[in-house]
Amino acid sequence: MAGRPQEPTVLLTGASGRVGRAIVGRLGDAYDWRLVDREPPTPDSEHIYLVADITDEEAMVEAMADVDVVVHLAGDPRPEAPWDSVLENNIDGTHSVLEAAASAGVEKFVFASSNHAVGGYETDERTPDLYRSNDDFRLDGSELPRPSNLYGVSKAAAETLCRYYHDEYGMSVVCLRIGNLTKNHPPEGYERGQAMWLSYRDCAHLFERAIEAEYDYEIVYGISDNDRKYYSLERAREVLGYNPQDNSAEY
Amino acid sequence: MAGRPQEPTVLLTGASGRVGRAIVGRLGDAYDWRLVDREPPTPDSEHIYLVADITDEEAMVEAMADVDVVVHLAGDPRPEAPWDSVLENNIDGTHSVLEAAASAGVEKFVFASSNHAVGGYETDERTPDLYRSNDDFRLDGSELPRPSNLYGVSKAAAETLCRYYHDEYGMSVVCLRIGNLTKNHPPEGYERGQAMWLSYRDCAHLFERAIEAEYDYEIVYGISDNDRKYYSLERAREVLGYNPQDNSAEY
Repeated sequence: MAGRPQEPTVLLTGASGRVGRAIVGRLGDAYDWRLVDREPPTPDSEHIYLVADITDEEAMVEAMADVDVVVHLAGDPRPEAPWDSVLENNIDGTHSVLEAAASAGVEKFVFASSNHAVGGYETDERTPDLYRSNDDFRLDGSELPRPSNLYGVSKAAAETLCRYYHDEYGMSVVCLRIGNLTKNHPPEGYERGQAMWLSYRDCAHLFERAIEAEYDYEIVYGISDNDRKYYSLERAREVLGYNPQDNSAEY
Repeated sequence: MAGRPQEPTVLLTGASGRVGRAIVGRLGDAYDWRLVDREPPTPDSEHIYLVADITDEEAMVEAMADVDVVVHLAGDPRPEAPWDSVLENNIDGTHSVLEAAASAGVEKFVFASSNHAVGGYETDERTPDLYRSNDDFRLDGSELPRPSNLYGVSKAAAETLCRYYHDEYGMSVVCLRIGNLTKNHPPEGYERGQAMWLSYRDCAHLFERAIEAEYDYEIVYGISDNDRKYYSLERAREVLGYNPQDNSAEY
């Protein structure tokens, strides 16, 4: 397109997962995508697609050539995943992707972290008040990790790996602590899910802002503009220009 | 000994390492020790000694019977250790020990963390002023991890594992971010080493306090009472009753 600057090349790991599809489904035309997943693509995929496991370091290094931004989603997504799986897929896997990105001189790294990295703040004393719109307890990303499961431990460990790669290699890194992504409408009859709801529309917008904005190292929360919430959106708004459109209270 | 309450049984992993020897050398009579190391004991060891690797989960479970307190030092101690080694020995290894301790109902867990978990705060802008006694920058344990190497990443990840095991199983856990342990005198001509010096005497006292005190989950710094320092000792004093006797400025 005449006059249009060249689209950034964005490598997306875990492209066939739920978050990956939410992103590519809405931002498919905006970037020169390189999709990576260990599962083969659906027949209608129109982007470059590499079938590889992220723990395969050689494959990751090859995939990084000419990449501007990495969006790293791949990993075991199950909150109840056993230790061996999150150790390999989420901790060691993130190390492989970071190492390959650093070697290739990638400038920006967007890491999909999780609300489970801080789920331990949902103590018996705080819940269910925490999930209600009249409660003013907030996490803002400066608090220590407090995982609610071993999956959350792995996400917090990967955030710390990201911190190291930022400090050591100067790579811009943002860790997005994704809330509860559900299509079309928030979870029904589930206060916690409504408090951390992230709509597909806001999810795609959040990742678009993470790909576009300038930052050093950040941890921000990724939820819609819900009345119910215990995550502050201030940092995401300020650093990324995140401006969510949805609110679980409207359903 | 008549009238004396029974000594607590303390399982010490990494007993033959430098920190382990500093502890047992001074507290050898105070506790009913169970020493664990993958290296065999020196011939003069007078305590129960198990030769095992901490990543051997079955051996760890057997070792935990009737243990009151675990002091977990074992791991690859090299700041320059490669990722594969710290992933296995420091992250997965700590998980094995925590899991075995939780299964056995151990009530208290003392984890030897490291200054390298936060070495990234020593930025070019802050050093060398940071190491001098007229500088008032302090870390107090509430800050996010910022590792200076992959070893430091592994220690921060293990601290987060400890947080999870505390929340999930009610085990008391303290993470001691050990400074620079050297025998007899502080490192000479090395400002950083003097700022984070921990004498053998203060090291043994710190672990004695960690074995004896009551707490929930804590991260504290372990250095001597140095004039030069950028770690606050407030939390160690307050929670553990730590009262160091040495100061690198006196050498």
